[in-house]
Amino acid sequence: MANASISPIVVAGTIAIDTVSSPFGKAERVLGGSAMYFAAAASLFTPINVVSVVGEDFGPEHWKEMSHPEVDLSGVETLPGKTFSWGGIYRKDINRRDTLFTELGVLERFNPVLPESYRSCQTVFLANVDPAIQLKVLDSLEKPEFVVLDTMNYWINNDQSRLEEVIARSDVIIINDDEARELTGELNLPGAMEKIQQLGPPVVVVKKGEHGALLADGGDLFALPGLPLKTVCDPTGAGDSFAGGFVGYIQRSGSRANQVLRTAVAYGSAVASFCCEDFSANRLRILEVEELDRRVDQFRRLVEFP
Amino acid sequence: MANASISPIVVAGTIAIDTVSSPFGKAERVLGGSAMYFAAAASLFTPINVVSVVGEDFGPEHWKEMSHPEVDLSGVETLPGKTFSWGGIYRKDINRRDTLFTELGVLERFNPVLPESYRSCQTVFLANVDPAIQLKVLDSLEKPEFVVLDTMNYWINNDQSRLEEVIARSDVIIINDDEARELTGELNLPGAMEKIQQLGPPVVVVKKGEHGALLADGGDLFALPGLPLKTVCDPTGAGDSFAGGFVGYIQRSGSRANQVLRTAVAYGSAVASFCCEDFSANRLRILEVEELDRRVDQFRRLVEFP
Repeated sequence: MANASISPIVVAGTIAIDTVSSPFGKAERVLGGSAMYFAAAASLFTPINVVSVVGEDFGPEHWKEMSHPEVDLSGVETLPGKTFSWGGIYRKDINRRDTLFTELGVLERFNPVLPESYRSCQTVFLANVDPAIQLKVLDSLEKPEFVVLDTMNYWINNDQSRLEEVIARSDVIIINDDEARELTGELNLPGAMEKIQQLGPPVVVVKKGEHGALLADGGDLFALPGLPLKTVCDPTGAGDSFAGGFVGYIQRSGSRANQVLRTAVAYGSAVASFCCEDFSANRLRILEVEELDRRVDQFRRLVEFP
Repeated sequence: MANASISPIVVAGTIAIDTVSSPFGKAERVLGGSAMYFAAAASLFTPINVVSVVGEDFGPEHWKEMSHPEVDLSGVETLPGKTFSWGGIYRKDINRRDTLFTELGVLERFNPVLPESYRSCQTVFLANVDPAIQLKVLDSLEKPEFVVLDTMNYWINNDQSRLEEVIARSDVIIINDDEARELTGELNLPGAMEKIQQLGPPVVVVKKGEHGALLADGGDLFALPGLPLKTVCDPTGAGDSFAGGFVGYIQRSGSRANQVLRTAVAYGSAVASFCCEDFSANRLRILEVEELDRRVDQFRRLVEFP
């Protein structure tokens, strides 16, 4: 479990109230958002300091659900207005989803001010938000030493120059396959990963959903297939859960050796697979470390050959 | 290398004359077809007995290119008319192709009569042809003991009942992900694989192109990611090369133990990756067994984590 001697990871991202339908049911006004999923996953490994914003409709039940002995919420600001809210539907093909609504609410006025106690943290996960905000968070930290970045198509298309500024200051970028292609204009995935490395980060992780993940660490490549899951209830947050497991495992290990990064991909994939088993982060909140270790063993067995 | 003490694999499928364009160039009227690719790959491991048909335009240069000390071509019939011919183009996105023409030619009159010397063979690869022809080949063998089947969407849509008859008599089916979903009506891939197993074959291999392959062996699952390739010249025949490496490795091993099947997927994937490096089966014809072993080692390294 998380250990007080491990220094916290700062995560800056969204907290959302989601309404999600899938063939397995419907979840109304449940917790969502990149920072929420990341914290739920990474707190299995280390303490987490959250930087985010919510609105006045963020009720006591939501605060209670976010609360966790390892998660510091003092950097979550409450602003007048509504919490960022997203609604989506997964149909029979669980790999595709339709967005029904996106209401930015207070997210439009997100202007993070980091609590004093966060500023000395050296590891930060910049979840998918406006690159200008990501830069502000980065500038608020005294000495960021391990900067992990996520982004998405919207920022690639609308603010690529500022995004590239953040990328240049990152040690790791976690990105999905389509985004990697879009960011670089390179269709070939290993080629795209190399181009991203040339922008700055020596480590690039590409998430491929059900097809697993690729890790480029300098010139070394690691690939992990997806765990074949017969039941996927709700894939929302799988990417941020992956990031939480990945960064959390590295932080707990206290090393960025290639072998640690490889195993971190397996832990990230394992946490993401649990995330998909229920709506919101429900499954992560009751997840035991032993279950997680067993699932990583399933990955080991899955890819093993003489 | 192939060994005279290993009994031959019978392969029944097409020999084609292909014209292929890709961002890397153009190859006009080169050898193609499922039986050709399978034989080029599997002859790295075992002797091969080919059952196929060509037309009168199949010239000495084509015969010469097909010839190999381990490949018996006495089951290749020449009929009046033209050899099956396919033309296609791969554009910037090498994972998609457009068919420019398909001329069935003598393939429309393909009615395989197996040479006497083939009939005692126990291992057979039924490449993608009309299920009625696949059944005829199967019935021509005295005691088929290891039947490996490939098929494609066309037969799933046009003759599913006869196809299911062949599936029921198969030990292994090799199929791509879309076909597995189409055959079963099940979008979830592990679910689709289970449904295919219920039709008969205890072993199901699903090819996912650049995303690798999945193997279901009874209740056991193995997954191998694709090797991240920076250069793909021509993916034509990759699937049949995979099958050739997979079945060839198993035949040479003389065992169908789970560990052998897992390693066979790696050999199939390695052969397929070489196939993509040049047009036609050009790369396979100069491939050394040591190169193949080294590429399988690359797969081992690719998926290894502590």
